[in-house]
Amino acid sequence: LGSADGAEMMAAWILLSCAWGQGMRAEDFAMEELATEKEAEESHRQDSFNMLTFILLLTLTILTIWLFKHRRVRFLHETGLAMIYGLLVGVILRYGIPANSYHNKTPASCSLREGPTSTLLLNVSGKFFEYTLKGEINSREIHNVEQNDMLRKVTFDPEVFFNILLPPIIFHAGYSLKKRHFFRNLGSIITYAFLGTAVSCFVIGNLMYGVVKLMQAVGQLTGKFYYTDCLFFGAIISATDPVTVLAIFNELHADGDLYALLFGESVMNDAVAIVLSSSIVAYQPAGANTHQFDASAFFKSVGVFLGIFSGSFVMGAATGVVTFTKLHCFPLLETALFFLMSWSTFLLAEACGFTGVVAVLFCGITQAHYTYNNLSEESTKRTKQLFEVLHFLAENFIFSYMGLALFTFQNHIFSPIFIIGAFVSFLTCQIAIFIGRALNIYPLSFLLNLGRRHKIKGNFQHMMMFAGLRGAMAFALAIRDTATYARQMMFTTTLLIVFFTVWVFGGGTTPMLSWLHIRVDVDPDQDLQPSAEGQSKTKQESAWLFRLWYTFDHNYLKPILTHSGPPLTSTLPSYCGPLASCLTTPRAYENHEQLRDPDSDLIRGDADLTFTFGDTAITANGASGSGADAAGEEALERELDSREQELLSRGTRLVFPIEDHI
Amino acid sequence: LGSADGAEMMAAWILLSCAWGQGMRAEDFAMEELATEKEAEESHRQDSFNMLTFILLLTLTILTIWLFKHRRVRFLHETGLAMIYGLLVGVILRYGIPANSYHNKTPASCSLREGPTSTLLLNVSGKFFEYTLKGEINSREIHNVEQNDMLRKVTFDPEVFFNILLPPIIFHAGYSLKKRHFFRNLGSIITYAFLGTAVSCFVIGNLMYGVVKLMQAVGQLTGKFYYTDCLFFGAIISATDPVTVLAIFNELHADGDLYALLFGESVMNDAVAIVLSSSIVAYQPAGANTHQFDASAFFKSVGVFLGIFSGSFVMGAATGVVTFTKLHCFPLLETALFFLMSWSTFLLAEACGFTGVVAVLFCGITQAHYTYNNLSEESTKRTKQLFEVLHFLAENFIFSYMGLALFTFQNHIFSPIFIIGAFVSFLTCQIAIFIGRALNIYPLSFLLNLGRRHKIKGNFQHMMMFAGLRGAMAFALAIRDTATYARQMMFTTTLLIVFFTVWVFGGGTTPMLSWLHIRVDVDPDQDLQPSAEGQSKTKQESAWLFRLWYTFDHNYLKPILTHSGPPLTSTLPSYCGPLASCLTTPRAYENHEQLRDPDSDLIRGDADLTFTFGDTAITANGASGSGADAAGEEALERELDSREQELLSRGTRLVFPIEDHI
Repeated sequence: LGSADGAEMMAAWILLSCAWGQGMRAEDFAMEELATEKEAEESHRQDSFNMLTFILLLTLTILTIWLFKHRRVRFLHETGLAMIYGLLVGVILRYGIPANSYHNKTPASCSLREGPTSTLLLNVSGKFFEYTLKGEINSREIHNVEQNDMLRKVTFDPEVFFNILLPPIIFHAGYSLKKRHFFRNLGSIITYAFLGTAVSCFVIGNLMYGVVKLMQAVGQLTGKFYYTDCLFFGAIISATDPVTVLAIFNELHADGDLYALLFGESVMNDAVAIVLSSSIVAYQPAGANTHQFDASAFFKSVGVFLGIFSGSFVMGAATGVVTFTKLHCFPLLETALFFLMSWSTFLLAEACGFTGVVAVLFCGITQAHYTYNNLSEESTKRTKQLFEVLHFLAENFIFSYMGLALFTFQNHIFSPIFIIGAFVSFLTCQIAIFIGRALNIYPLSFLLNLGRRHKIKGNFQHMMMFAGLRGAMAFALAIRDTATYARQMMFTTTLLIVFFTVWVFGGGTTPMLSWLHIRVDVDPDQDLQPSAEGQSKTKQESAWLFRLWYTFDHNYLKPILTHSGPPLTSTLPSYCGPLASCLTTPRAYENHEQLRDPDSDLIRGDADLTFTFGDTAITANGASGSGADAAGEEALERELDSREQELLSRGTRLVFPIEDHI
Repeated sequence: LGSADGAEMMAAWILLSCAWGQGMRAEDFAMEELATEKEAEESHRQDSFNMLTFILLLTLTILTIWLFKHRRVRFLHETGLAMIYGLLVGVILRYGIPANSYHNKTPASCSLREGPTSTLLLNVSGKFFEYTLKGEINSREIHNVEQNDMLRKVTFDPEVFFNILLPPIIFHAGYSLKKRHFFRNLGSIITYAFLGTAVSCFVIGNLMYGVVKLMQAVGQLTGKFYYTDCLFFGAIISATDPVTVLAIFNELHADGDLYALLFGESVMNDAVAIVLSSSIVAYQPAGANTHQFDASAFFKSVGVFLGIFSGSFVMGAATGVVTFTKLHCFPLLETALFFLMSWSTFLLAEACGFTGVVAVLFCGITQAHYTYNNLSEESTKRTKQLFEVLHFLAENFIFSYMGLALFTFQNHIFSPIFIIGAFVSFLTCQIAIFIGRALNIYPLSFLLNLGRRHKIKGNFQHMMMFAGLRGAMAFALAIRDTATYARQMMFTTTLLIVFFTVWVFGGGTTPMLSWLHIRVDVDPDQDLQPSAEGQSKTKQESAWLFRLWYTFDHNYLKPILTHSGPPLTSTLPSYCGPLASCLTTPRAYENHEQLRDPDSDLIRGDADLTFTFGDTAITANGASGSGADAAGEEALERELDSREQELLSRGTRLVFPIEDHI
């Protein structure tokens, strides 16, 4: 029995059983007297049915993904597919249900002089009922509140995206980062993410402002659209999400460095874009509605940006570092605790006014670096798989929801003028985005290449340019606030841009890869070997910073936070002895003793020892010549790699304490 | 660094970072002009903080569980612990925050003649705002809506328990059922679950009605309390949840049959109680408020019970049977699909008017029986672990929420008279429950023992009597509707009963086990060996039914739905040849061919072949003598067991097609 049969069986089964259930309940309802109880049950069933729609959408997507993977179809990624299915269901929900099936009655209304409060009391002959504000409603829409109610039921609270769906996606991104390639390209990634996103945001914002002015002159724009709105749009649309491209890279084993650059950039620029957009919202010139440039407000925005970003970073990293080392015997407890801690990082950051998504990203990176080493073997597998499943489901859900939202979301009104406006702005945006991304990638790559040993080649730059897809983060940021005309316009435009980039650029990845002659089927082990070219051009400054951090991490943080690394008693100066022995766990000593044991099977060959020596040599003297430096950097990379392998094999690492060599 | 340090660090970190974040945001807020925006952000942060409270509660629970497991403390189970922590936090939330920190302002109100509608429009100078009904509010409570709002924020929509937290718990129960012991005791389990729950419900309902009449005579009862309310209470309180007892059984390796009886009974009686309670709600005598016995209404209730139960059963079993066999290469897709299908079963049943929890239970049992065999090795592990984690988190969440709800839940009013009433009803309930359970266990055990080969011994009966704890299901049923006085009383009483039984009976399990001389440290393999006693008293009828089902399952269902079992071409009559070969997958043939291969390593020893022969002998002639019957039954049991082992080892089963032996 194939899966297709399964789906068919399921569909037939749903129809059959629902028909029976409906019949049974109908007579049930006839007997019931309380209208509210009946209404509540009806609403509960409607809710269940709506959720079921989403679940079946996801099921359908998964079955089609399987078919595509089975037949090696690469022109459409699962996310693109999910959007198409969502689109179809959205069309059915909006136009398939005849309007006369609704009662078209206007609900009860009452008048008040004052503005809306979040809670309203209704007095019905002495009994009080509590009502909560749902939102403003257009005066045209009053008469079909009921139909809108149905459509609104399938639209979620935007906060759901931020609080429930995004965290697992972002955490998984941080947790599954391929560390070796990531750290090797850290400088470039950070440059692209911070400088690049800022450039992209300002270029897109300014171009869009020009277009807005033009449209206002022509009279196409019916609402207000300020400069800050344009910048805000620039920020949200700068969050790239090359999920399609990366999935194909993974499948084809494309170049590791290019993968790391793209993945790292997209992960970090999500964080930058989200903080950037909230600092733009915080930009409020002193004179209320002047909308002129205000230096103090600008610097306040910059301050907010730095404050929120660093706060979220520190919070995520700090929570990621909190360790639990004695839970080894109970993998279930360990996994549950790990899950709860990641989520509490997110909530903690939100509760404190920082950005949860950024915090959870750095929490993921830190946990992969430290906590992962403390988990039992079973928990490492469990946590990886748990987050993999959550990430997979959340991502496909968001994309199918995007498809659905195009036709069912309340706050984009379908008037011809609006659609024309949206398309015009879509096209200009697309051009603006292209220009923005070009001004991000090419000049920055040129600058970075001045300092890089491994140059970012021309075809890599073109590929990065091409891979600037927009996805879940742009959508989540756009849907968060759709109160004003400008924001509604942005939301619709963002939706169209996501569709366009995922389908067109996502589908064109494989042809583009071969057209740009980017090597595929790279053996990750072979990729490890240092390339002979360009070793002499190492910039000592950046390497020095990295080395300093590495030494500190290796000698102090790792021993304190995990069992790997040398015991603190050997790395700390002797006057810190009591503190060191108090902070070192027995297991670290065990590792240490195993090392001294000459009969141990774990002693590695000469080659490995050389690397460890090289490593220690660096830690001992940081100011050696550039030739030794290059060798040292190779050693660092190998070290990072061996750490990654260690994560997989959980073998005991061999580390000679410094004292032995000085 | 130990776990305790981790928790301390975390707490300190929260305080520190929140202080900073608050400071930063405060000046941020001062600049903002829109009150609603500020309010929305404030509410968002409050939400995050509330969620964080729960997450930290769970984290604390997990850390303490670890401590308890580490020190082998058994007097308090994790669920009891979660309740205590929840209770403490509830007290702090209710009494720790001074009342004058609230503005104590009355929200805006307006009057209408007609009854409350679900949607209300508010007209503020031409602009329309939409409000949704939250519920009736007591006229006393109007002035502290704001404080109530804070308390209500930590109380969830009761539907959350039914739609999100219960399904994983119940599904896990079905999915992790130990099939051998379960099927061996199937008859007894069904008897306890159906007859026993009905007996318990009516006994408790009637006893409570007597108490209610008495209290009304004394004047202690201030609200209405009908006979159907009493029966409803009897139904919800009959749902047992011996999670503590079973956890200790598992740890001590107590007798497998007793475990199966208790576990099976509690799982099934949850399903029975939930359907029973909704059929009692459906019982509505023709004359509106007579509250006299009405035969037609009674039979309607019975009809509703049978309809909903069988509908949910069929729906769950049917969805559990839908198979996907070609996804082996993509474990992630498989796991996601498996998860989605279980959840869609729940939603489908709810959308069709059946009971989702019952459907998901039978879906779990069916999936463990059929779908599990089709999953790839990695997916079997993944799905087990995924549901284990979900179940663990959901269960501990419910129990800590119960603790929290005692002090923060809106709908039990804390008046002295109410508390006295609740305690009186608690005590009478506890007695009623004891009587109800006694009238369930002892007479039914006596009846069952007449027909059982393995007798249910006296000490087993006492232990089952003792293990009648109340837990998550009773709570979820009670919280679902707290609109009337009677329901609020029930809710509070249920909460107190859950606390009492979990702490007192849960804590007393280990002493009780040794007092009743129930053997522990049973080797599951040794337990497999047939006990010599009582073989001659086998009831042929019940065995015959079981055997009929088993043959059908083994020869037709298993081959159609999974790859295990003999190919259909060999079990179906020859005239069904084309159909059979169309339904048989290549893998099934492979298994079959492997079997024929004399060199195969998989051929088992003589002992195993004997069992298989015995098995086939039964399928061939169902009416053999009682001696052969007993041997046959042993073979069935071994077969069930080998199936279980097969699930673990995923080895190819060896099955001789019937034709070869006749």
